[in-house]
Amino acid sequence: MRKVYDLAGRENECRFSPFCWRVRTALAHKDLDAEFVPWRFTEKDRLAFSGQDRVPVLVDGDRTVSDSWAIMAYLDETYPERPLFDSPQSRAHGLFVKHWTETALHQAIFPIILLDIYRALRPEDQAYFRESREKALGRRLEDFEGDREARLTTLRRTLAPLRQTVKLQPFLGGAEPSGADHVVYGAFRWPQAVSDTRLLEPDDPVQGWLNRVTAAYRDRVRLAA
Amino acid sequence: MRKVYDLAGRENECRFSPFCWRVRTALAHKDLDAEFVPWRFTEKDRLAFSGQDRVPVLVDGDRTVSDSWAIMAYLDETYPERPLFDSPQSRAHGLFVKHWTETALHQAIFPIILLDIYRALRPEDQAYFRESREKALGRRLEDFEGDREARLTTLRRTLAPLRQTVKLQPFLGGAEPSGADHVVYGAFRWPQAVSDTRLLEPDDPVQGWLNRVTAAYRDRVRLAA
Repeated sequence: MRKVYDLAGRENECRFSPFCWRVRTALAHKDLDAEFVPWRFTEKDRLAFSGQDRVPVLVDGDRTVSDSWAIMAYLDETYPERPLFDSPQSRAHGLFVKHWTETALHQAIFPIILLDIYRALRPEDQAYFRESREKALGRRLEDFEGDREARLTTLRRTLAPLRQTVKLQPFLGGAEPSGADHVVYGAFRWPQAVSDTRLLEPDDPVQGWLNRVTAAYRDRVRLAA
Repeated sequence: MRKVYDLAGRENECRFSPFCWRVRTALAHKDLDAEFVPWRFTEKDRLAFSGQDRVPVLVDGDRTVSDSWAIMAYLDETYPERPLFDSPQSRAHGLFVKHWTETALHQAIFPIILLDIYRALRPEDQAYFRESREKALGRRLEDFEGDREARLTTLRRTLAPLRQTVKLQPFLGGAEPSGADHVVYGAFRWPQAVSDTRLLEPDDPVQGWLNRVTAAYRDRVRLAA
């Protein structure tokens, strides 16, 4: 059976990594099944077999692939039906969408939800999360308590290119979702898994796009471990 | 002869519209010739034949097409060799790059160069530019005199997704430039045409990418009217 090591919170059902979500919907896109094995921040030894210490890790028969982008490329190579990217140029453009997601969108979402993430973790993972994130940010997690409205405004402004695009076409991939949709969609499943904060106004075209992606994979995305 | 109505400054040689530049390099990409007819902001009557009042306007035989994105689509449809986008999905992704360029990159460049643009115009066009831009911005042009360093910092941060992408592949389109490269490249020809401000550090990977696009079309991009 195909396996994906998947970041989990205190509850097994809490799967919040935006990178792992890319793999979850990419597998659904290809109608491929997998077991999503819960994994926590402090279980780095359990990934030793993969030669690195981060999720997602896909184990597919005798192949082990880490890094969500590499996993998506592996899936297109190994299972060419229902491609995530239908040409090298399209994949190359997808790489820009990936980097926009990571340098602009994730950066705008993270400060809004980092305390929610913290609260969703086991105590031992909380300690790891606090130490690593406070070191990276140069600030205490609690410094992000306020300013929610200003951060939401920044996030909604950051979403402008996505919003303009999905006003003109149903998906980033055009008439159907592509790998680019999976990458951006993962960014939104991250807050959804841990936070009650409403990131989008209900009439935001981005919300319509989110609903379309969710509907496209509703029957094929499974959370069971 | 194919004709493109092309925004010009006081000097005929000053062609600064980022949208017109898209068409210039897209034509070069396809090895198609055109006359680039200088046009100024206050010459709206000269575009009346196109049913709207903005450049670029392409006149190709009996076809008239306005709007840079529509012109690029027209070129791929009419001259399918050397496609700007090699699949509908790739074009769909390109639309995201276009909207990122217009909502993030142009927004970061414009405040840095708007006084330079103003100074490059004929007096009658200066009056038009001042009135229309001050109304849109809600501020006087001269309010943008200072803060150059802070604005350059914002611009360089905005460029993160482009920078990360062209570190990993030569062009946004991958091994070769695509329509997405033309759209982003146009944004950089805009300041280059009117301003001495150095937007990029010389060792910025974005500068390397700019040099590669310039080199790819060096022999085919003409400025002659």
